[in-house]
Amino acid sequence: MSHDSRIELTKDGLSLSRLVFGAWRLLDSAARPDADQIARLIGTAVDLGLTSFDHADIYGHYQVEAAFGAGLSRWKGKRDSIELISKCDIILASANRPQNRLKHYDTSAAHIAASVDRSLANLGTDYLDLLLLHRPDPLMDADETAAALAGLVKSGKVRAVGVSNYTPSQFDLLASRLPFALATNQIEMSVLKTNALVDGSLDHAQRLGYAPMIWSPLGGGLLFTGKEGREARVRAAIAAVAAEIGAGDLAAVAIAWLLRHPARLAPVLGTMKPERLAVMVKALEIDLGRQQWFAILEASEGRPVA
Amino acid sequence: MSHDSRIELTKDGLSLSRLVFGAWRLLDSAARPDADQIARLIGTAVDLGLTSFDHADIYGHYQVEAAFGAGLSRWKGKRDSIELISKCDIILASANRPQNRLKHYDTSAAHIAASVDRSLANLGTDYLDLLLLHRPDPLMDADETAAALAGLVKSGKVRAVGVSNYTPSQFDLLASRLPFALATNQIEMSVLKTNALVDGSLDHAQRLGYAPMIWSPLGGGLLFTGKEGREARVRAAIAAVAAEIGAGDLAAVAIAWLLRHPARLAPVLGTMKPERLAVMVKALEIDLGRQQWFAILEASEGRPVA
Amino acid sequence: MSHDSRIELTKDGLSLSRLVFGAWRLLDSAARPDADQIARLIGTAVDLGLTSFDHADIYGHYQVEAAFGAGLSRWKGKRDSIELISKCDIILASANRPQNRLKHYDTSAAHIAASVDRSLANLGTDYLDLLLLHRPDPLMDADETAAALAGLVKSGKVRAVGVSNYTPSQFDLLASRLPFALATNQIEMSVLKTNALVDGSLDHAQRLGYAPMIWSPLGGGLLFTGKEGREARVRAAIAAVAAEIGAGDLAAVAIAWLLRHPARLAPVLGTMKPERLAVMVKALEIDLGRQQWFAILEASEGRPVA
Repeated sequence: MSHDSRIELTKDGLSLSRLVFGAWRLLDSAARPDADQIARLIGTAVDLGLTSFDHADIYGHYQVEAAFGAGLSRWKGKRDSIELISKCDIILASANRPQNRLKHYDTSAAHIAASVDRSLANLGTDYLDLLLLHRPDPLMDADETAAALAGLVKSGKVRAVGVSNYTPSQFDLLASRLPFALATNQIEMSVLKTNALVDGSLDHAQRLGYAPMIWSPLGGGLLFTGKEGREARVRAAIAAVAAEIGAGDLAAVAIAWLLRHPARLAPVLGTMKPERLAVMVKALEIDLGRQQWFAILEASEGRPVA
Repeated sequence: MSHDSRIELTKDGLSLSRLVFGAWRLLDSAARPDADQIARLIGTAVDLGLTSFDHADIYGHYQVEAAFGAGLSRWKGKRDSIELISKCDIILASANRPQNRLKHYDTSAAHIAASVDRSLANLGTDYLDLLLLHRPDPLMDADETAAALAGLVKSGKVRAVGVSNYTPSQFDLLASRLPFALATNQIEMSVLKTNALVDGSLDHAQRLGYAPMIWSPLGGGLLFTGKEGREARVRAAIAAVAAEIGAGDLAAVAIAWLLRHPARLAPVLGTMKPERLAVMVKALEIDLGRQQWFAILEASEGRPVA
Repeated sequence: MSHDSRIELTKDGLSLSRLVFGAWRLLDSAARPDADQIARLIGTAVDLGLTSFDHADIYGHYQVEAAFGAGLSRWKGKRDSIELISKCDIILASANRPQNRLKHYDTSAAHIAASVDRSLANLGTDYLDLLLLHRPDPLMDADETAAALAGLVKSGKVRAVGVSNYTPSQFDLLASRLPFALATNQIEMSVLKTNALVDGSLDHAQRLGYAPMIWSPLGGGLLFTGKEGREARVRAAIAAVAAEIGAGDLAAVAIAWLLRHPARLAPVLGTMKPERLAVMVKALEIDLGRQQWFAILEASEGRPVA
């Protein structure tokens, strides 16, 4: 394979599959999958090498974790052959949480502890491999939050801790209070959303040595449907590269574009369709040349590099 | 009280009152106060717990410090029961300084030393509790400026040194040359001006452990008079919170919104009216809940958090 | 002289002339200079104190280095009385490189090594005094690139290494992997392009102690020809300062404006005309006062400082 199929996240042995199964939209289809269907989907993902499953307490208006947990209980594999990732700190205004008056964040020790306990119960497991703070909370008391996170690791409820959507400055603040390194920063990036290349996020990751996880690695589907100039340009550039290398699928090339980056990006795939997962996994075998990579970047930016 | 009434600035004992009296507009009213009136205003502030007085050499076109000093000489309290803060490095084009052709900055050792000597003479004291560089000077020679500041501390003319309106990058440069920690960064922030929450300023403060002072904590009064969308939205959101918690005054809630932040913000109050000071001091007793705090933020940003 | 005529770049003895001869446009004139003419130009520059010559592999569509090298071979001076600077990592789409399909970057070890070997051969020397990475490469693998650069220094092919057009974040990443300090960051700056004053670039340089080189120090000539508001304002402000100090030439004042900065800027002069070089060298004798410096800044920004 052209790309490593696993990413080492911590020095004491936690690794993720290079491509991560994103459970965000597990319940989004009109026909809500039952536990057996979810168990089969888990099995398919694992068979394709996607052993890491990305959750958040709020996905599906607080319903995805429990549905996934029901599927997991029917799946025949071993708990330690997969990695369960969840997130906390976003508080949704949701019919399922009537006490929440507006969307906000909460990085208090009490909320983090309660949210992790709910995630563990919903997923039917006694530990998370990775817990992420979902969004930077402007009211984060770094001492309090770090102590809560360190306590979760010490208790064994969480193997490693990371963040999501953090700037380097926010990352450095939290990191300054923790007795261990933050394992990742899950950020948005795709051929349609390239600012992480220049805003310092990937410099920071490569300098400190953590591997970023990537959400919306296909631009939320806009790559295939968007009619705007940028999307049409990028689609054409990817199609040209795909033709050149004999790749059948644009999504696999778009994922391979991320895998080419030296900061060791781990894209979170959001499709619930086994056949789409199978196609995207082929990205691991696609090694883009520099001119191919920059041709896609140039199409995205709408101009040659400086 | 819900909030600490004092803020520790340095490890060797300098603290400020949580709410600071800002002398900026001391001479702005049509009826210029005389020394006795200023002495009474000082007494009122101290009685309300505002023992820290924020000055700058340039306030009132270089006239405020001397007027305040005249009042201070008639005030009956002890020098060491209050904290005097001043600033230097802005050079105003002013009728009182005909040699100044345009507004500029000066962080040369000679200017800093001369400015502090003038501030001490004008205020009628032999030391400043805190000296701030007023604005980042693009021509600052960090070695020269740091040596000047360190010399002032060594001489006893200044107890502690800080900056104002600095980015983290500018702060780090000056800090790299000083033999002690910078005590604060006085920045603009209010319910109408929230960028410090996301531009790294407050991350930096919390990471390094210094307490930011806050100027224009009420948005320069726009909160009460502004007719634009943002101001009207924020006023309504604050009014709703005030009604909910039984607070009588919008300004107190707006100040409490700042006090809620974990970086230990010290707002500088700019009113010269004793009755307004008395109202704002009630902010120390107001502990906003997260949903209340975020409702005000959402009104200010004009959209829910991400 | 008002300004040091040399800039120390490294602790083991590499210095540059304060004003650097930029070879970028060596072949741009209609009448392409021959080797003897270039030899004379080198002699003139050295006689004026410009002993440092700034190149890049790509200048003149990959032709400048060889033309300069031909001139250098006829010049009578000693190799160790001058400093040769070159750059790599931009890959041009050029008739001289038909394999290049689009402009892109390459910081791979293989490309860096090959590019330096070509620069050495073209210039007719066995070492570069300074090698710069020309542009930040989003695909830079810091470990690989740093190892390549360190190897070049160890081999003696390159005395020192720097970067160009890097943000502080990009600089810190590469620096984190190198066994020596980066010697410079060559950035764009002029009276018409002042963002380095506020974007952290010069803070970073002064904090770490490296001297930035400056490209387009006259704004690419716009200072003299531009008809827009900013350019007209700056030209008038510089003319007023020039009249005040008795300087005959606007360009010398514009260069002196850069030399006034405490970060020790080393402007790269792009003219090929000996008489223009002679005029600009007079900048070394011009010591602008703060009010003069800020008057030019104010004209450039279009408003007084804050």
